[in-house]
Amino acid sequence: MHPMTSNGVVNESVFLRACRGEDVPHTPVWFMRQAGRSLPEYRKLREGTAMLEACRTPDLVCEITLQPVRRHGVDAAIFFSDIVVPLAAVGVGVDIVPGTGPVVAEPIRTAAQVEQLRDLTYDDVDYVAEAIRLLLAELGGTPLIGFAGAPFTLASYLVEGGPSKNHARTKALMYGAPDVWHALCSRLATITSQFLNVQIEAGVAAVQLFDSWAGALSLADYERFVAPHSAAVLSSVQDKGVPRIHFGVGTAHLLGAMAEAGADVVGVDWRTPLSRAADLVGGRPVQGNLDPCALLAPEVVLAEEVRRVLTDGASASGGHIFNLGHGVLPETDPGALTRTVELVHEHSARRAT
Amino acid sequence: MHPMTSNGVVNESVFLRACRGEDVPHTPVWFMRQAGRSLPEYRKLREGTAMLEACRTPDLVCEITLQPVRRHGVDAAIFFSDIVVPLAAVGVGVDIVPGTGPVVAEPIRTAAQVEQLRDLTYDDVDYVAEAIRLLLAELGGTPLIGFAGAPFTLASYLVEGGPSKNHARTKALMYGAPDVWHALCSRLATITSQFLNVQIEAGVAAVQLFDSWAGALSLADYERFVAPHSAAVLSSVQDKGVPRIHFGVGTAHLLGAMAEAGADVVGVDWRTPLSRAADLVGGRPVQGNLDPCALLAPEVVLAEEVRRVLTDGASASGGHIFNLGHGVLPETDPGALTRTVELVHEHSARRAT
Repeated sequence: MHPMTSNGVVNESVFLRACRGEDVPHTPVWFMRQAGRSLPEYRKLREGTAMLEACRTPDLVCEITLQPVRRHGVDAAIFFSDIVVPLAAVGVGVDIVPGTGPVVAEPIRTAAQVEQLRDLTYDDVDYVAEAIRLLLAELGGTPLIGFAGAPFTLASYLVEGGPSKNHARTKALMYGAPDVWHALCSRLATITSQFLNVQIEAGVAAVQLFDSWAGALSLADYERFVAPHSAAVLSSVQDKGVPRIHFGVGTAHLLGAMAEAGADVVGVDWRTPLSRAADLVGGRPVQGNLDPCALLAPEVVLAEEVRRVLTDGASASGGHIFNLGHGVLPETDPGALTRTVELVHEHSARRAT
Repeated sequence: MHPMTSNGVVNESVFLRACRGEDVPHTPVWFMRQAGRSLPEYRKLREGTAMLEACRTPDLVCEITLQPVRRHGVDAAIFFSDIVVPLAAVGVGVDIVPGTGPVVAEPIRTAAQVEQLRDLTYDDVDYVAEAIRLLLAELGGTPLIGFAGAPFTLASYLVEGGPSKNHARTKALMYGAPDVWHALCSRLATITSQFLNVQIEAGVAAVQLFDSWAGALSLADYERFVAPHSAAVLSSVQDKGVPRIHFGVGTAHLLGAMAEAGADVVGVDWRTPLSRAADLVGGRPVQGNLDPCALLAPEVVLAEEVRRVLTDGASASGGHIFNLGHGVLPETDPGALTRTVELVHEHSARRAT
């Protein structure tokens, strides 16, 4: 065990070392959606700027990504973007509608439409690389996490035309036209791989593949229709020196398969205890899994829940990165996030010494 | 093993005997939401009648409940109603808004509001008892399943004021004001028990407790905040001679606890294989678990999925009742439901002989 210091370089290594399953002086912590709507300074900055426009403006992306690092003292920054950014970058007509989410102008359901999905090049997302360069100059020792949406979750938006409760059209395409389905996911895997590799070449220290809606699938369907495409993405960023985190919601039944798809770290929601998750993912490090709703609870209850997650995480065989089980809810008091970071650091450092 | 006959009395016993874990000549099958929007004869009958008004009209309830029995030849009828009917019956201002779901005029979040939730009497829901009597005269040997929403799922609608993605306000109340939470769920357990007992006295042959959204909770939260109230409901209908089915969505991590709350049969969604579910529920019969989206697939794929569920169900130690993993989707072709019933009967009868 190394002593915790306030030195940024040691801070960096805490997150990355935990991703590699190494001993750490305290449990590292960051939050999915830490950069965004829960912060008043974010809402102020975003006034008058549409979401995708913000994602394409390096200065804004840099500042929004830094805000939660400054405010909460988290152990990692997550690049401010949206999973549909690479889709828009290759010409898909998609917008992010406030209160709804991604809306696709012409849902993709035919082989002809799939064929029109072209490769993503550096020039399509040069603003992403530029924002990463700006961030690396500002972040000091705090590692920057890049990310992308996984083929299934992207495909669901494209096929449904927007957010979906049941993913019924997506599954209907999967079952009814498996050749179109696999062609679509194969194209999305290529685009996603290209997008992640732009981020890695620009300097992100880790990547997270968000398969947010994979939990809607049975294990059999996941293995048959989804896992090969996620595996293609994850293998495209193997051996680049950056840990690969693989995350979904409601995946109690899929954790083993998601690990085997090529994850170095597996994200877990609050439904699966971390100690159990660690067994399911073959002893890889696990990331999670405070219920985002716990941040709405009184401080004493929040503290109890944070300690419960840390205790559970301490018995996860491969190590633990503290996070939520899903993204920060917009109505969250930022103070609760700051307090959680303090609690994680204090409590886990005490345990480590 | 008994031979399958076309005699209604034998049909009845197939469903009820399966609920008791007894040998059956074929796997019984019914569908959650079989009475409703997928049927053109239903949509025609409902024209100009609001949902709650329909639920309060015995002739309509009787006819709507019978429609899928006639059309599909299912082994059980499910009473046409809605989980908010008993809430509206005790004076809660709630309506069912097409395309949205239940909307509560004044969300319930305080002890004073909880105290105003009064007991439910026979007179509040005499139309339910009347509809059941009409149905028993029409159904012959086909058993009628009554149902109610479980305290957590009802509480979520009351606290949120409508359907919710994250149940954030509900959990915030649970964590922040556990005394109010338990008082609310205790009142809801009483009302639900009274509602189910009206149905049992009027003659339903089985009951299903729908805790549709319980899967949003961790096991720890479920056991602490929810299970005692569901157990109170289930124990209030114990020893009445009717099997008690307990169902939720995304409950891979909760199945054992839901069984222990007092279920005779546990409903399972498509995320958990039935054979695994049977182990988790201590060998009780399991009900499920075809993905409702499989009904949107081509017939050959649907048939394959039905056979897969039957094969998996055949290795469930306590027996199997075929159903979907959640309700019938409105866009489902009714022909796919009829075909599924035929497939289940044919395939399982062949296996049984």
